[in-house]
Amino acid sequence: MENKLKIGIIGLGTVGSGVVKVLSKFNDIEIVSAAVKNLDKKRDVNVKNITTDAFEIAKNPEIDIVVEVAGSTHVKDVLIEAIKNKKHIVTANKELLAKHGAELFDIARENNVVIMYEAAVAGGIPIILPIKTSLKANDFNSVAGILNGTTNYILTKMEEENLSYEECLLKAQKLGYAETDPTGDVEGYDAMYKIAILANIVFNKRIDYTKIYREGITKISAGDIKIADELGYKIKLIAQAKKVENSDMLDIRVHPMLVDKNKSISEIKNATNAVLLSGFPVDKVMFVGPGAGEFPTASSVVGDILSIKSELNTNNQVLPMTMCNHSIYADLINISETKNCYYLRISANNEPGVIGKIGLACGEFKINLSCIIQKGVLDNPNATIIVITESCYEKDINSMIEKISKDNNIRVENKIRVM
Amino acid sequence: MENKLKIGIIGLGTVGSGVVKVLSKFNDIEIVSAAVKNLDKKRDVNVKNITTDAFEIAKNPEIDIVVEVAGSTHVKDVLIEAIKNKKHIVTANKELLAKHGAELFDIARENNVVIMYEAAVAGGIPIILPIKTSLKANDFNSVAGILNGTTNYILTKMEEENLSYEECLLKAQKLGYAETDPTGDVEGYDAMYKIAILANIVFNKRIDYTKIYREGITKISAGDIKIADELGYKIKLIAQAKKVENSDMLDIRVHPMLVDKNKSISEIKNATNAVLLSGFPVDKVMFVGPGAGEFPTASSVVGDILSIKSELNTNNQVLPMTMCNHSIYADLINISETKNCYYLRISANNEPGVIGKIGLACGEFKINLSCIIQKGVLDNPNATIIVITESCYEKDINSMIEKISKDNNIRVENKIRVM
Repeated sequence: MENKLKIGIIGLGTVGSGVVKVLSKFNDIEIVSAAVKNLDKKRDVNVKNITTDAFEIAKNPEIDIVVEVAGSTHVKDVLIEAIKNKKHIVTANKELLAKHGAELFDIARENNVVIMYEAAVAGGIPIILPIKTSLKANDFNSVAGILNGTTNYILTKMEEENLSYEECLLKAQKLGYAETDPTGDVEGYDAMYKIAILANIVFNKRIDYTKIYREGITKISAGDIKIADELGYKIKLIAQAKKVENSDMLDIRVHPMLVDKNKSISEIKNATNAVLLSGFPVDKVMFVGPGAGEFPTASSVVGDILSIKSELNTNNQVLPMTMCNHSIYADLINISETKNCYYLRISANNEPGVIGKIGLACGEFKINLSCIIQKGVLDNPNATIIVITESCYEKDINSMIEKISKDNNIRVENKIRVM
Repeated sequence: MENKLKIGIIGLGTVGSGVVKVLSKFNDIEIVSAAVKNLDKKRDVNVKNITTDAFEIAKNPEIDIVVEVAGSTHVKDVLIEAIKNKKHIVTANKELLAKHGAELFDIARENNVVIMYEAAVAGGIPIILPIKTSLKANDFNSVAGILNGTTNYILTKMEEENLSYEECLLKAQKLGYAETDPTGDVEGYDAMYKIAILANIVFNKRIDYTKIYREGITKISAGDIKIADELGYKIKLIAQAKKVENSDMLDIRVHPMLVDKNKSISEIKNATNAVLLSGFPVDKVMFVGPGAGEFPTASSVVGDILSIKSELNTNNQVLPMTMCNHSIYADLINISETKNCYYLRISANNEPGVIGKIGLACGEFKINLSCIIQKGVLDNPNATIIVITESCYEKDINSMIEKISKDNNIRVENKIRVM
């Protein structure tokens, strides 16, 4: 069997093990070796050769495809070495692609190999290749979604069990959905890398991820979720990239949003991901599925391996469609220049005139209210006031908040955008 | 510009016009000619050469790809001629593929051309190519979905506006969602062709569409929809293909079902389609989008054209992954041997002992009830009794129905399976 496709794997954690298990049923694919950090760690899969030196894999002349499922940007040099040795790359590494994708894709192009990364966004959901193939005729206006399973799990539990953020984070950590240091997930970094990758494909421009507005879920309280629910919304961490009207700019951001319960994306629960594309001629399509996990991620990784394999049988100019533009940077609009509807949770000392002051400040900055509610006061010195605005500029809502916050009786506890 | 990709189109109806409009922005693709039935018909698109002889297109040596959006099986011989003239085919014709796909794919293989058909199932939703590429690592257990927009529109309107089937069919016809003779949609033929095509790809076996169990929506009453709603269900026309447990057989069918409101597929409204795939390692993924229409369908047709175009630049062994098995027939289980939960709407003369008789008959055929309700009787000589069973054999529920129907006081008005 000299014709077997030869794979080298970097990383044998959860996803790596899943890949080894799934590949075991393909007799014409052989895992030649795997690189790990710790040789002594107990694993439930066997690979012939295990090394701690990932460069061995990058240089191994036997290997056709290097599968990188180690994560973090430390593997960059290894992958560059592998590409220079004419190996195709399959990676699940969103951080690496968001930060160094342009460089890697350039080197890949020079070396006539491809980098496939279906697993880097939305786990098991096929989204990268469908945008590049079946949906290629489209001019997209927007791509938006729930791209981080950990935060969606936490928000779902907060809502269903009326628990605090901290309690639900602990649950997520116990289940292995969140890491000991949860920053990457809960502060929106993971979703930010993913929307940077999606925006690159959807709008065919290079994205400087450092310019993406990012806000996590740590400030969302059980009370916000309860009030949103009463008003007909769920709170979701939404990653989105859209064209700015009458402009060449893109609006890309990650932050929590109140999502109308009538929108199907509000129904996405627990660790499930969803990606919503809007464009012409297709109009709107939505993809829903598992955003992470050993096997769903392995589904995408092995799908990429099989795609490369099928093209390798033809000639070496493989998968030209998988290339997108990395030379022209997208111009990103600053969050302060965007228009949004806002939910404000305000607490106030229960004194006359507070609602009037809020109303006046909104008027001064030309902010129309679509809803203002004062909640349960009787005998309580503090009142909670909920404001939902019509669409207005972020800079104006911020000025309004600054203005009313000068009043010692008024504190704006949270500001959440409305989808 | 000698390197332009040359297209011939068969059919310039709604979808054909959409394809012409969408292709107009691609400077490197040229529509050489189009075949139509009636030269004098007013059209909002212009094509250089229009002919009534589709064989001219099939034989035109200039043409690289023949796009067939005429529908019906009459075009079969034209497509065979085109394939023999080494033209790649892009088609939206589910009926043709379900009935003659195996023959066409065989001839295509012999002539080293591909047949792409993303638009044939679920309109603008990318589903065919994702199953063949990104999801290729999977062993699927089932594929199920709402594959016909017309019937889903009718059922949605019946539910939302509490109207009869006939009234909603008329609405659908006025909006152009349903044809003057609606049989193909409302009796489930359209969904049957589509599930035959999907099952072929998902299970890699040839499907004899004449063996697919098929039931339309014409017997669904506004009352059924209202009662289902009260019990926590929506009624949807579901097309599904799944593996039969502990067997090599497939269970493929199209019929209305009560769908639990907690299932996301119950939320699919109007002419929207949804496809739900379940398998290992991906677990479950769902695709939602427009199932028909000028532009969404054109999105898939042009996506296919661009996929072929990108591969043509490499060599002639294009898209090997798009081939699936058409030599081995799937063995389909007969509906009478399947197990399902059932909703029965029974009307009975309001006499003592009716519920007892129903209960006894269920017991005789070992059918457990999960719910039995008698609705509004007072002063009315007729009672409506709703029964929902636990999972039992179709042949047993049919025997039970036959048995109770012998009683002149009892009439089973409808039997709907529960998802």
